[in-house]
Amino acid sequence: MSKYWSRGIAGLEAYVPGEQPQGTGWIKLNSNENPYPPSPRVIEAIKAAAEGGLRLYPDPDCMRLREAIAAHFGLSREEVFAGNGSDEILAFAFAAFFDQDEPLLFPDITYSFYPVYARFFRLRFETIPVSEDFGIPVEKFLRANGGVIISNPNAPTSLFLPLREVRRILEHNLAIGKVVVLDEAYIDFGGDSAAGLVGEYPNLLVVQTLSKSRSLAGLRVGFAVGQRDLVEGLERVKSSFNSYTLDRLALAGAVEAMNDEGHFRETREKIIATRDRVARELEGLGFSVLDSKTNFLLIGHPRAHASSLYRGLRENKILVRYFDRPRIDDRLRVSVGTDAEMDAFLDAVRKLVM
Amino acid sequence: MSKYWSRGIAGLEAYVPGEQPQGTGWIKLNSNENPYPPSPRVIEAIKAAAEGGLRLYPDPDCMRLREAIAAHFGLSREEVFAGNGSDEILAFAFAAFFDQDEPLLFPDITYSFYPVYARFFRLRFETIPVSEDFGIPVEKFLRANGGVIISNPNAPTSLFLPLREVRRILEHNLAIGKVVVLDEAYIDFGGDSAAGLVGEYPNLLVVQTLSKSRSLAGLRVGFAVGQRDLVEGLERVKSSFNSYTLDRLALAGAVEAMNDEGHFRETREKIIATRDRVARELEGLGFSVLDSKTNFLLIGHPRAHASSLYRGLRENKILVRYFDRPRIDDRLRVSVGTDAEMDAFLDAVRKLVM
Repeated sequence: MSKYWSRGIAGLEAYVPGEQPQGTGWIKLNSNENPYPPSPRVIEAIKAAAEGGLRLYPDPDCMRLREAIAAHFGLSREEVFAGNGSDEILAFAFAAFFDQDEPLLFPDITYSFYPVYARFFRLRFETIPVSEDFGIPVEKFLRANGGVIISNPNAPTSLFLPLREVRRILEHNLAIGKVVVLDEAYIDFGGDSAAGLVGEYPNLLVVQTLSKSRSLAGLRVGFAVGQRDLVEGLERVKSSFNSYTLDRLALAGAVEAMNDEGHFRETREKIIATRDRVARELEGLGFSVLDSKTNFLLIGHPRAHASSLYRGLRENKILVRYFDRPRIDDRLRVSVGTDAEMDAFLDAVRKLVM
Repeated sequence: MSKYWSRGIAGLEAYVPGEQPQGTGWIKLNSNENPYPPSPRVIEAIKAAAEGGLRLYPDPDCMRLREAIAAHFGLSREEVFAGNGSDEILAFAFAAFFDQDEPLLFPDITYSFYPVYARFFRLRFETIPVSEDFGIPVEKFLRANGGVIISNPNAPTSLFLPLREVRRILEHNLAIGKVVVLDEAYIDFGGDSAAGLVGEYPNLLVVQTLSKSRSLAGLRVGFAVGQRDLVEGLERVKSSFNSYTLDRLALAGAVEAMNDEGHFRETREKIIATRDRVARELEGLGFSVLDSKTNFLLIGHPRAHASSLYRGLRENKILVRYFDRPRIDDRLRVSVGTDAEMDAFLDAVRKLVM
């Protein structure tokens, strides 16, 4: 605590990202990164952009990227917002939509950045506990609120909430005039996106990222789709914060990532196939494995505590994520790597639970 | 105004960045961009980083970049913060240090983003009018305050406040326990940086950018130097907002930009020489030209109004910046381009004032 800090920041509790090990030889299954490289077209576009005018500011409106994303979803570019990772867009959305008289609602368990944003922007919030089987109890969201944010599929549970259930929350919040943000960071690994519902629901904002399914965690690009009012709300926050949060290289690379549909589908299918195979093998070893629609698995074992499994894997230079938080402290979140990486993981884990 | 917007954002007035013309053939003297390309080492480093692991998250702590900046200033890396342009760092600083009982103080005229940040974070502020000759009246800052931010050299006046004057504000605010942020976006074009005073003043944060003197407006990298408490304050805000705001390419390029001291000095000297020559020629045409220590000139002509000069230049495909604001609406801000660009500007302006 410093006497120079504002009253706002002294009490902040920061989000802690997954560890980035410095040495070599690690199998890194702790940050839900994609094990496959991005499209070669992305890399070529970045190299060309590096030659072409870094001395000039980027386009603050990200027009070409928004057009590429709009084309992907059959929307207009005015219905698309682009930002520095979905994290930045989520932060903007908290400021733009959730400062209301009633509290913001989100599930507990969910992405641990939500309470951090809420505290940073001094927003009231209440959490709705997930059920025994980690599902989201939709009926408990159908009450007075100042907005709802749901990660779908949810993290770190990996579970997908069907769109017919999402619609119940959207309908309710449409009636009370409040926004619903769907954080679809993991949607491309088996869930159905609500992006197709944007035309129906003026209160719906869908946030996605290029970090996971498009292998670009290192480029920091996310986007949101919603009706123009909501996109303009995000733009107002951005213009009060930083006019250019996407650099020329990120813009150029992201356009190609959106356009190379073939590469996207191929890597996504590989990850889904690996995930489902590993899930079956883990179940064979006695693990409880939630029905993942993401690029990670949330797993627990009745006879081996998650924290000791975490340490045992770490001794084998395999990094997974352990959350020392109520309800999930007996589970591990394991990102889906290549088949070879997952075989090494399975070998290590087999020895640890035997 | 949308019913979905929070109470905070409806009243926001956005910062408007300089226009980015889409067609070709423009001489762009409106955004204080560097007319020379960045170091070739920057471009090589970016290309290598594009090949090397974009699928992985960047280092959230920006260690290598902070070490390169620390080496440049003879500081430790714990005394350096890196961010997505100096704009993002300024936004973080407003949140980290300026939410106090007394109002934040800054000059009027200055960078027009300051009141935007203050309104976004709902901070009280008062502005101190600059003097008739656009100088900063230091004695008026020596009062109760919740922090001070000064752009030095100031923008868009282009004037540098000598460090002995800056010290008076630092000493005063040290006594009352409040932070002073010096926004040194233009410091490399002739001013003396206060970075060397960081050891003396625990309340001093110096913010700089790679956008201007290092020709990297398109890469979005800025940094701050200050004692550890202040750097930690910025880190707390960042961790509540977006863990990774610098992508792998920006980090890799920025390290080389800091390390290539030769390229930096050479382009800076060229710009200073061009600036001083153009200033003399403009004075010969009857212009009033402030004594610039930046990469732009603030100029006015007794017989030609700034808004008509702006339009006349625009018809010649030369873009400069006109601010329709009290006290500077009879002046133009003209970025220093290449010698050829400035000769074209001088030719056009000569015809307009004759």
